[in-house]
Amino acid sequence: MRSLIPFIHQLSRQETCDWIDTIQTQLPGCDIREFSQLSEVDKGQIEIAIVANPDPAEVAQLSRLKWVHSVWAGVEGMMANLSHLPFEIVRLTDPQLAQTMSEAVLAWVLYLHRDMPQYRQQQSFSEWRQLAYTDAADRHIAVLGLGALGEKCAVRLVDNGFRVSGWSRSAKHIESVACYAGEQQLPELLAEVDIIVNLLPLTPDTQGLMDRAFFQQVKSGAALINFGRGATVVESDLLEALGQGQLSHAVLDVFTQEPLQPQSPLWGHPNITLLPHISAPTSVTTASRIVADNISRYLAEGSIPQSVDKARGY
Amino acid sequence: MRSLIPFIHQLSRQETCDWIDTIQTQLPGCDIREFSQLSEVDKGQIEIAIVANPDPAEVAQLSRLKWVHSVWAGVEGMMANLSHLPFEIVRLTDPQLAQTMSEAVLAWVLYLHRDMPQYRQQQSFSEWRQLAYTDAADRHIAVLGLGALGEKCAVRLVDNGFRVSGWSRSAKHIESVACYAGEQQLPELLAEVDIIVNLLPLTPDTQGLMDRAFFQQVKSGAALINFGRGATVVESDLLEALGQGQLSHAVLDVFTQEPLQPQSPLWGHPNITLLPHISAPTSVTTASRIVADNISRYLAEGSIPQSVDKARGY
Repeated sequence: MRSLIPFIHQLSRQETCDWIDTIQTQLPGCDIREFSQLSEVDKGQIEIAIVANPDPAEVAQLSRLKWVHSVWAGVEGMMANLSHLPFEIVRLTDPQLAQTMSEAVLAWVLYLHRDMPQYRQQQSFSEWRQLAYTDAADRHIAVLGLGALGEKCAVRLVDNGFRVSGWSRSAKHIESVACYAGEQQLPELLAEVDIIVNLLPLTPDTQGLMDRAFFQQVKSGAALINFGRGATVVESDLLEALGQGQLSHAVLDVFTQEPLQPQSPLWGHPNITLLPHISAPTSVTTASRIVADNISRYLAEGSIPQSVDKARGY
Repeated sequence: MRSLIPFIHQLSRQETCDWIDTIQTQLPGCDIREFSQLSEVDKGQIEIAIVANPDPAEVAQLSRLKWVHSVWAGVEGMMANLSHLPFEIVRLTDPQLAQTMSEAVLAWVLYLHRDMPQYRQQQSFSEWRQLAYTDAADRHIAVLGLGALGEKCAVRLVDNGFRVSGWSRSAKHIESVACYAGEQQLPELLAEVDIIVNLLPLTPDTQGLMDRAFFQQVKSGAALINFGRGATVVESDLLEALGQGQLSHAVLDVFTQEPLQPQSPLWGHPNITLLPHISAPTSVTTASRIVADNISRYLAEGSIPQSVDKARGY
């Protein structure tokens, strides 16, 4: 008998079809269905679900659920609403995602390093002015968050000539990257870097981490790239730091509420580069293959892939 | 006796002092002077001059000149006005320059690859829209000009995941780069690349190379990055190609006349990113050291460094 696996999500019709078709092709021995297609009997028997920011009320109806596989890396929504339930949460770890994210980090670090925002502004005034060039080796970048994504990003910046330091909750060792760890070592790092790249997961510890006190610790005129999660940054404190020149520029790809509302003051700010959450788009093809492989292995051997540590939150 | 070496230029006071002080420090055995400080007797005895876009009339007065060393890589001004005189012209070959140029090429290729101009425009309309992501391996880049600079740029793009082809006057072989050569192979290359990076020297062959016929050969919607010389591009034909959508975007760093005049239509064009000749700023420190080493070697051994081929023009 084919295993019945629901895909539980809050996506558009088009995206849903794309995911279900692709996963179904990768898992011919399973029957991939929408939640609405499940009978009450099905709901009492299902052991595995594939999820994309699911409605918690739907997931909670699956009484025999052993584990869920997210097609995305970020699972803070499920952690907030479903972590009290006994099933395991597996998040996507996709090497292609790390590749795309490291490309984005390099692209927007170079954007700031080569003064693209200033040259763009000069162009709008027909102003011909050459700004002093800083060698990449003299541009100090901090990568906050040294998981699979962060490590790849830090190494790629090193490979492209930058001076790179990293920061994470627990101590790491990465070749050619000065690694700092824990809350106590953060101020020391912030005081000496030119560009801060946020790749931290959203947890109770990182929620609101970048507040007024944080921005007061950064080197005057530093820039921020937020490719992690929107709620890590306190928006009003960010605007204050930009207004005071404490921060020179912010590249923001993630926001507390997405899509960002049209009336947000962030859109029109001259020192904010605003992106619609595109730093590392998930590839349906490669993500589906990873999800399918993990589910096939479970069905054959009974082993659940490494899951989220509910105490840490990621 | 200390050798008298003039520095002949058309630079600002500040730039002149910077160059003369730095070169003098590197060449303590020589006496580095401005042209205006030379006596008529000096002018009849000088064998070497250091130049930075010199007034040809001044250089022509040095009747015993054997060679000149440019502090820049581009020597088209001297080739046009002084190539009939018997002295050799040595241009700067600075590994640091190739490093900075390859960084600029990567930075602005990523700028186009990651859709920064479109996201900038969407931001100005408060528009949240995710554009389809293209993998770097599916983005085909052509580097025109495969000298020391071009080769380094091509390899750096390969290292960062792009598909790269190159084109040069004479055949080259570069690992992982499909190399095309000669006028005949250019149309074939232009028809299939997404981004064209111009690094060609300015010679009678490349003057006006990018004209209407050239733009008609490119793949529809391709982008151009001109980090070579302004006069390689026919400006009116470029504007026509942008207007027709044949070219989607142009990043221009060099112009026939620099600084670009404030009334130029290029400044305000929505599909042009305009830079004030900053792709690869010469480092006075590293360039001075190279010039000083070459002159020291000549004074000790009598050997002139490899000079410009006056038939080719570079």
